[in-house]
Amino acid sequence: MSDFSNLLTTSIKDSISAWLKEDVPSFDYGGFVVGKTPELAILYGKSSGVLAGVPFFEEVFRQVDCNVEWLLNEGEYFEPIKEIARVKGKACNILLGERTALNIIARCSGIATRCKKCIDKKKAHNYHGIISGTRKTTPEKYGMLIGGADTHRMDLSSMIMLKDNHIWSQGSITDSIKKARRVGGFSLKLEIECRNESEAEEAIQAGANIIMLDNLRGESLKSCAKSLKERWQGKREFLIEASGGITEENINEYFSPCKN
Amino acid sequence: MSDFSNLLTTSIKDSISAWLKEDVPSFDYGGFVVGKTPELAILYGKSSGVLAGVPFFEEVFRQVDCNVEWLLNEGEYFEPIKEIARVKGKACNILLGERTALNIIARCSGIATRCKKCIDKKKAHNYHGIISGTRKTTPEKYGMLIGGADTHRMDLSSMIMLKDNHIWSQGSITDSIKKARRVGGFSLKLEIECRNESEAEEAIQAGANIIMLDNLRGESLKSCAKSLKERWQGKREFLIEASGGITEENINEYFSPCKN
Amino acid sequence: MSDFSNLLTTSIKDSISAWLKEDVPSFDYGGFVVGKTPELAILYGKSSGVLAGVPFFEEVFRQVDCNVEWLLNEGEYFEPIKEIARVKGKACNILLGERTALNIIARCSGIATRCKKCIDKKKAHNYHGIISGTRKTTPEKYGMLIGGADTHRMDLSSMIMLKDNHIWSQGSITDSIKKARRVGGFSLKLEIECRNESEAEEAIQAGANIIMLDNLRGESLKSCAKSLKERWQGKREFLIEASGGITEENINEYFSPCKN
Amino acid sequence: MSDFSNLLTTSIKDSISAWLKEDVPSFDYGGFVVGKTPELAILYGKSSGVLAGVPFFEEVFRQVDCNVEWLLNEGEYFEPIKEIARVKGKACNILLGERTALNIIARCSGIATRCKKCIDKKKAHNYHGIISGTRKTTPEKYGMLIGGADTHRMDLSSMIMLKDNHIWSQGSITDSIKKARRVGGFSLKLEIECRNESEAEEAIQAGANIIMLDNLRGESLKSCAKSLKERWQGKREFLIEASGGITEENINEYFSPCKN
Amino acid sequence: MSDFSNLLTTSIKDSISAWLKEDVPSFDYGGFVVGKTPELAILYGKSSGVLAGVPFFEEVFRQVDCNVEWLLNEGEYFEPIKEIARVKGKACNILLGERTALNIIARCSGIATRCKKCIDKKKAHNYHGIISGTRKTTPEKYGMLIGGADTHRMDLSSMIMLKDNHIWSQGSITDSIKKARRVGGFSLKLEIECRNESEAEEAIQAGANIIMLDNLRGESLKSCAKSLKERWQGKREFLIEASGGITEENINEYFSPCKN
Amino acid sequence: MSDFSNLLTTSIKDSISAWLKEDVPSFDYGGFVVGKTPELAILYGKSSGVLAGVPFFEEVFRQVDCNVEWLLNEGEYFEPIKEIARVKGKACNILLGERTALNIIARCSGIATRCKKCIDKKKAHNYHGIISGTRKTTPEKYGMLIGGADTHRMDLSSMIMLKDNHIWSQGSITDSIKKARRVGGFSLKLEIECRNESEAEEAIQAGANIIMLDNLRGESLKSCAKSLKERWQGKREFLIEASGGITEENINEYFSPCKN
Repeated sequence: MSDFSNLLTTSIKDSISAWLKEDVPSFDYGGFVVGKTPELAILYGKSSGVLAGVPFFEEVFRQVDCNVEWLLNEGEYFEPIKEIARVKGKACNILLGERTALNIIARCSGIATRCKKCIDKKKAHNYHGIISGTRKTTPEKYGMLIGGADTHRMDLSSMIMLKDNHIWSQGSITDSIKKARRVGGFSLKLEIECRNESEAEEAIQAGANIIMLDNLRGESLKSCAKSLKERWQGKREFLIEASGGITEENINEYFSPCKN
Repeated sequence: MSDFSNLLTTSIKDSISAWLKEDVPSFDYGGFVVGKTPELAILYGKSSGVLAGVPFFEEVFRQVDCNVEWLLNEGEYFEPIKEIARVKGKACNILLGERTALNIIARCSGIATRCKKCIDKKKAHNYHGIISGTRKTTPEKYGMLIGGADTHRMDLSSMIMLKDNHIWSQGSITDSIKKARRVGGFSLKLEIECRNESEAEEAIQAGANIIMLDNLRGESLKSCAKSLKERWQGKREFLIEASGGITEENINEYFSPCKN
Repeated sequence: MSDFSNLLTTSIKDSISAWLKEDVPSFDYGGFVVGKTPELAILYGKSSGVLAGVPFFEEVFRQVDCNVEWLLNEGEYFEPIKEIARVKGKACNILLGERTALNIIARCSGIATRCKKCIDKKKAHNYHGIISGTRKTTPEKYGMLIGGADTHRMDLSSMIMLKDNHIWSQGSITDSIKKARRVGGFSLKLEIECRNESEAEEAIQAGANIIMLDNLRGESLKSCAKSLKERWQGKREFLIEASGGITEENINEYFSPCKN
Repeated sequence: MSDFSNLLTTSIKDSISAWLKEDVPSFDYGGFVVGKTPELAILYGKSSGVLAGVPFFEEVFRQVDCNVEWLLNEGEYFEPIKEIARVKGKACNILLGERTALNIIARCSGIATRCKKCIDKKKAHNYHGIISGTRKTTPEKYGMLIGGADTHRMDLSSMIMLKDNHIWSQGSITDSIKKARRVGGFSLKLEIECRNESEAEEAIQAGANIIMLDNLRGESLKSCAKSLKERWQGKREFLIEASGGITEENINEYFSPCKN
Repeated sequence: MSDFSNLLTTSIKDSISAWLKEDVPSFDYGGFVVGKTPELAILYGKSSGVLAGVPFFEEVFRQVDCNVEWLLNEGEYFEPIKEIARVKGKACNILLGERTALNIIARCSGIATRCKKCIDKKKAHNYHGIISGTRKTTPEKYGMLIGGADTHRMDLSSMIMLKDNHIWSQGSITDSIKKARRVGGFSLKLEIECRNESEAEEAIQAGANIIMLDNLRGESLKSCAKSLKERWQGKREFLIEASGGITEENINEYFSPCKN
Repeated sequence: MSDFSNLLTTSIKDSISAWLKEDVPSFDYGGFVVGKTPELAILYGKSSGVLAGVPFFEEVFRQVDCNVEWLLNEGEYFEPIKEIARVKGKACNILLGERTALNIIARCSGIATRCKKCIDKKKAHNYHGIISGTRKTTPEKYGMLIGGADTHRMDLSSMIMLKDNHIWSQGSITDSIKKARRVGGFSLKLEIECRNESEAEEAIQAGANIIMLDNLRGESLKSCAKSLKERWQGKREFLIEASGGITEENINEYFSPCKN
């Protein structure tokens, strides 16, 4: 597995230092009691899942001068009760980072675990499409990546996404896309929410990169996708996206036979 | 119901403005496309639950110059599909606050809903104890309050909490409590994790306010609590806390007959 | 012309307030001398150019409680000496915002003006390609947009860009692209620097969206672009980018006859 | 003496770096003149007092890459002229931290010294009560601790404190305490300002932890305290607090003979 | 009296919002209890002094949505018990700003009061020199101005100040001044600490603006100052500064008969 | 050449970390692709100029854990193509700092280069006056210093500068200067914009340190300066400043024969 920690830069340092400050706004009374004796704390996995959030956990403890040794790699699946990491440092420092570190790694691993379940289903169905989530914060996006899912756009400044009510305020899909291209230029992709096949046609013609078909499900979704793909074959490249109410339980229904 | 928004102060403004910045690090391309036309967006509750997070949601939209009108009060239970709020503002501004506002209110309401389920069980059992959660961030703590649960300590600077391994680094429970009182003074409460009744005895004697019995469950927990309560009746005030692995399903087992 | 101010969100507020603080770290002595008398300041354009940076200028003066009235629209070309804007407010407040506001609008308009010159040349040659700049900060990017140029990627989190030495560290162009897709997913575009036509071939095959041909110029560039376009016609969509040493003087040489 | 530096966490780093920035907003001209020659600076105590603020002083110099060697322990009393610490580092760096470091240690030690004088008086009178101060910022609170005083509540989020005018807005002391418990839960203490013994009775009954008797002084204060303590003996635990106009000179009058 | 609030700019907003956050790191429990009822709070002056810090006090209450009405002007002297200001707002908001506002105005007024006492003595002696203080933070500097004292340099980036040990690291006073001018240019003044008259001679010759004679007191100080002033009359402009151990009690000894 | 890096303190760290964050708001996709392989990057000077901005460039790479080795000293002139620096670090880290580091060093060196050209002209004309620029941000001011120019005032809190319209709001130049001295005290210099010789007379009389003659040019400027200098010789020290429309081309016209 690749080293995902390279994705994360100095920008997480400030978030983590803000979280630590939120957790100890003034005095650390517990830290005073336990003092500076060297201690070893062990992180146990108490339910099964995928480990995710390693670089966040490490940065928390780096900021409080502790060292982390990992007994499991990020992205690995574990069964409880599993010893996952060992944190070494002064008693007061381990205590100081504990709540923040656990909070992030639990959230991150939980998301990775749920993503992995969907990805496993996809593989079992031999589906070649992409599974993407809608979590929003950086640690959540990171957890999705570790679990094998696509992050969808990171923020409003990444991919341009136009929903149907945004479009009508512009008069037409074509005008909206033109306007978006004026500022997004060639470096950003453009996703358009379409309510039916004819809107999708217009969007593809106007240069949309991703067509979100929010109203369609099941067979009508699949036949619409198929018909669009066939019609534009060799003329335009685009992706078709379905969203809304997709769960671990019903995701199978979205796996179309056509290769992406 | 009281107005919980009074609990929140200027300190949430910075968090929310940081979250908005994380969501739109540079240009808001979608905002450019939809422009400044006045729009109305409606927040729907798509599954049943308790509404929580009203002041966070409002602050998000206040920062992007939109107004929120509520059709439901914070803390009220709703069945889907329920119209919860109406947001009015310029199209680009509504879009700008949307992701952040939804993210907080969904998380907050989810926590409130789960808390309410436990509180309802407690009431059904006529239990007079306190139910408290371990969520950590400010919106999560707020959600617990709305759901009727106790927040437990807000942060490491609020209540002093000493776990068993911290105590042994000091030699004895009595010494640890003495040391904690030296800095926590008379204004903070002190919680001690005890492994058995005799440790609990020492802690109460030394002035602990809350005794956490982490190793005990079921009848042994209840009998230990009863015996401590009886022995110190009229001599010391203290609370007994159980924690670890308590879920919506097994919480009944923790409801002791003795009044808190 | 569209309202580009919608592109800018709460994220410029903090930058501008930091710039104002940098400009008046402690006391504003001049402000004390001039006091709170209402004053009118006029912004003159002293050389010809394109006006750009209106929302930044406005935000500076909004933060110091002044009002701005514009006599020219953003993006308009003016000849000196042109009255551009009128700022009304207390004498001390106008003084307070002056240096910061002028600094941004001068930089922004300068960039817009140079961009417009290149765009004008492009139009004169009836070239259909895109002209993009490499300025880096938000006000600079904004100035390029106003001047009619494309911003290229905003930051390292927008479009993925792999230069040749990055690729070789991965073994092959194909492997690099595969690795980038693993994290960038379907929502980000991918630009690859290629040293020759065969590398470009591999990159297009592997799914790159933009091919940067950094070593080629003049006819060899044009013929390589033509040959790639023809070969992949109807199979893949991609863009060809040239860069390095392009100036207002030599930009004509880059205008190829083929339509984009 | 215990190591109080364990109380302080990453949260002081930001304050100190903000103070350093306030002190050198742009260029350090003096630093340029003196350059990088290694130098030794000595901190002298020029009047008698208690040394306090060691970890703040150290953090300032840590941020400017200097080392501090202490010739006196925090909390020790010294007579002038006493060599207290030696700071080693580059000339420009020592100069850079000097003003900020001296400012904090002087303020902190001044507070500690005044606290110690009150504590000494208390000991001389064999009084067992608690002496607490009302200073507000973190370095001030820290100085009080070093001087032997109690910090009282750190901030508005620590102990809940209700003054008499706050209570009447709620109708009754009992209602106010009930409302406060709804959000403060079991982890926070509750202090109530009472104007007379019958209000104090109601507050104790309703579960207040600290009773502040702001209007009473001298013998009437002592007799009220005695009567409350006797009446609730074995029924409720509470503390009685006096405040307002207590000085080093008149503090003796507040030492009651009854043990705390 | 002039309006000193014009001296203060957006830069105090951030400090004050940081202080408010330090005072209420998470929930405002008291605010929850008192709720949003409109209330009136009155600021009383309980000992005699000079009112200082008005704009800081106002900014605190502006940030928590309260209004302040002043019954005394900044800089006015008052005798206790004097009603100074009335704060109107929601009960929870008044409570929220109270501690921070009182802390600043007390500190600021205390400093102004002590400055005024020294200035009064100066006037009584008909001395024409300048009295300046060494307080360091912005509210402290502001208090000195209100009390009639000079602020001395605001920070290390304002006036360049070279102490004797800094100079010797450069070889000579002349070299140090030359080096300082290289970066400080014509816009900054230069103060040099000199140990005797001949060093002062060299410093004046080399262009120093202020000569600090740290080792001299009483008559030797006055005669040295006189001799320097006479010798350089009509050749160089400079100021002579004495410092160290000057108190309200001994300040008379520093009032020289010669006009500044 | 002296070490100008001593001028820069902890205050640049925050700016640079903000710039890095602006450049990589969330994920560093390129960094993920290139990974942690050690790499060497070389900074080439592609056009002739003066190297400036060394400490900014170093701080950028220090924050991303890379080392910089310099082959040229700050302030040295180079001809293209010149190898200027070598940056060693992990591939992902070099990439991370690249854009920010190049942006600053290019801007800084460009300014230094233009300053040097003016300074060279001054030397060729044997002019003894001061050449100063009006750039505003810290890296720009720094570049001017490296290029040999004076920074003029750093910010509104350094030197007090009164323009003619500010003065008239006070009634007279003398009143304005008096008011400015009330707050600026003895530690700040005072610059006054005068429209003619008689205003300059009044300003000098009232104690201004720098006289800006904004309306005068060529011989009328020189003769006014000469006449003022002669008249006040031995009575007042002051500087005469010309500004507005001075370029590399016309700067010669401002070199007066009189020594500064």
